[in-house]
Amino acid sequence: MARVYNFSAGPAVLPEEVLKEAADEMLDYQGSGQSVMEMSHRSKVYDNIIKEAEADLRELMNIPDNYKVLFLQGGASQFFAEVPMNLMKNKKAAYIITGQWAKKAYKEAQIYGEAVAVASSEDKTFSYIPDCSDLDIPEDADYVYICENNTIYGTKFKTLPNTKGHLLVSDVSSCFLSEPIDVTKYGVVYGGVQKNIGPAGVVIAIIREDLITDDVLPGTPTMLKWKTQADADSLYNTPPCYNIYICGKVFKWIKKMGGLSAMKEHNEKKAKILYDFLDESRLFKGTVVKEDRSLMNVPFVTGDKELDAKFVEEATKAGFVNLKGHRTVGGMRASIYNAMPIEGVEKLVEFMKKFEKENTK
Amino acid sequence: MARVYNFSAGPAVLPEEVLKEAADEMLDYQGSGQSVMEMSHRSKVYDNIIKEAEADLRELMNIPDNYKVLFLQGGASQFFAEVPMNLMKNKKAAYIITGQWAKKAYKEAQIYGEAVAVASSEDKTFSYIPDCSDLDIPEDADYVYICENNTIYGTKFKTLPNTKGHLLVSDVSSCFLSEPIDVTKYGVVYGGVQKNIGPAGVVIAIIREDLITDDVLPGTPTMLKWKTQADADSLYNTPPCYNIYICGKVFKWIKKMGGLSAMKEHNEKKAKILYDFLDESRLFKGTVVKEDRSLMNVPFVTGDKELDAKFVEEATKAGFVNLKGHRTVGGMRASIYNAMPIEGVEKLVEFMKKFEKENTK
Repeated sequence: MARVYNFSAGPAVLPEEVLKEAADEMLDYQGSGQSVMEMSHRSKVYDNIIKEAEADLRELMNIPDNYKVLFLQGGASQFFAEVPMNLMKNKKAAYIITGQWAKKAYKEAQIYGEAVAVASSEDKTFSYIPDCSDLDIPEDADYVYICENNTIYGTKFKTLPNTKGHLLVSDVSSCFLSEPIDVTKYGVVYGGVQKNIGPAGVVIAIIREDLITDDVLPGTPTMLKWKTQADADSLYNTPPCYNIYICGKVFKWIKKMGGLSAMKEHNEKKAKILYDFLDESRLFKGTVVKEDRSLMNVPFVTGDKELDAKFVEEATKAGFVNLKGHRTVGGMRASIYNAMPIEGVEKLVEFMKKFEKENTK
Repeated sequence: MARVYNFSAGPAVLPEEVLKEAADEMLDYQGSGQSVMEMSHRSKVYDNIIKEAEADLRELMNIPDNYKVLFLQGGASQFFAEVPMNLMKNKKAAYIITGQWAKKAYKEAQIYGEAVAVASSEDKTFSYIPDCSDLDIPEDADYVYICENNTIYGTKFKTLPNTKGHLLVSDVSSCFLSEPIDVTKYGVVYGGVQKNIGPAGVVIAIIREDLITDDVLPGTPTMLKWKTQADADSLYNTPPCYNIYICGKVFKWIKKMGGLSAMKEHNEKKAKILYDFLDESRLFKGTVVKEDRSLMNVPFVTGDKELDAKFVEEATKAGFVNLKGHRTVGGMRASIYNAMPIEGVEKLVEFMKKFEKENTK
């Protein structure tokens, strides 16, 4: 079978040339006589791999020297606990609730202190980003937390919230490396890699150095203390070596594609094709307020559940897979991450047009 | 360059046919049109992969129905915290200190309660396993903890300690699937996969069902609570999908090789070749008390640091890599896990004989 167009929300499509390289190197990485899976994480050859991955990421994101880059494990879900454990000195933090993942982070923080929901869009099934220009943030809040792109609902913060001088912590799992960001505006930027960067099993956290201290909440496991990982350059124990190696290849691929500005252009072009069609379609419509639309995740519906199911089924047969929407939104969702080629979106729209013609009077 | 003989302590050598299969399937897993790295962890195709991996592991280890199998992240180091967080109801536990990893687990437990060192072999650089037939275990200890095979020092428990009715928790990272074990003798058996099973980034934990409860220490992160993972069949969030897929392939390889009894025979044969030579060599000697020798990790020295270094250098050039011993023991260490073929050990011994001849009078 040929490769499909994979619209999965994550794990998700990876650049074909990265996969080809990985396959070629599987039994012998660059003359080492070993697979990267078999290498000691303390070996020179692996050290080059992880160091180069970090250097390429720093270059791509223009990460200042006073930020550490950590390769961690456990997914964003584990990081939800690490944030309060490492940052909640005053046992208070402000959370902006824009979807399921922000809500989970908020609930996890309640284990450790007072998490205050300062804004929410739950009233309309998270179909918009609330106005965050003048929030009632507690003076002594240790940080303000956002989930910057909401995978399930297809919304994205186009402007960062006004944190009123508080530290900003952002989960960028589903928009990681999709466009340039100004790292200096954040205290912590982090995300799971399994959407835009690599195989599940790595969280990349970019953390301002002064936030990495021994002053963590009592009972914090050694492995969840950022200082443990920072002091050891993410090699306190064996990291997910192979996963980091693939991430490194994706960083090189993005560099070759022209970096994050080029990536943004590429993503805007793809998203425009799909959103323009949704805006003119008689059958399909987007579920999100226009100005808050994500470039990465595009939910849409026909308004008829049976027709939605029929569409997903026929699309799958035609080689457009993983288009079923999340159960809380229903309908469809096309995730069009960095590695989704333009022709994938063009062909999807072509297919949607054909389906529309066949299924409207 | 040809494949080398890789004696790394971990990450370590994997079966060549597993790597070949993985390379072949990299762009299209069994007609799915996707790499396993790109698959939704909620898809049917991935669900089959993880379910089959678990079923094969259960068959191999003869795991009773009242034990759960969890695929986790964070390495053994993170599990060091999970053990007390999930089990230390009386805030007391007994630790047997047979090496660096047992000691780290013991220190981590002190964050959460009273960890009592009931035996230790630190007096002789952990070169033996202490007598554990009649230990002074506190009555109210929640569990007894061991590291069953000590990677750095090359020792192994040949008999499990007499826990006097207490729960046994065992880190089997470096002897996982190297021989049959009786799971019913343990409360918890766990290990990182990066030595005998697969690519770093997965911990497999086999836990007796009644130990998996909501009654965990306050402040335990949701992700570190075993019940979270057990209730979701290791799919609470995105697991390290690709790593688990490779583990599954290794399980199938072990089954094909004849299962754990055959694996034990194979490992005993390999270890005998190396130990027999060490026992008769005029130059090299093993560092471990004979009756406690590991089948997996074989440390040895010449007694002369410069000669050790020369040996490691020449061996590397000859294609026997990662033979340098851990800095706390010095000398050399050959890790001869399941996937190390007999001819790898035979050829190493040949090379050692040649080196001995050239470097003794």
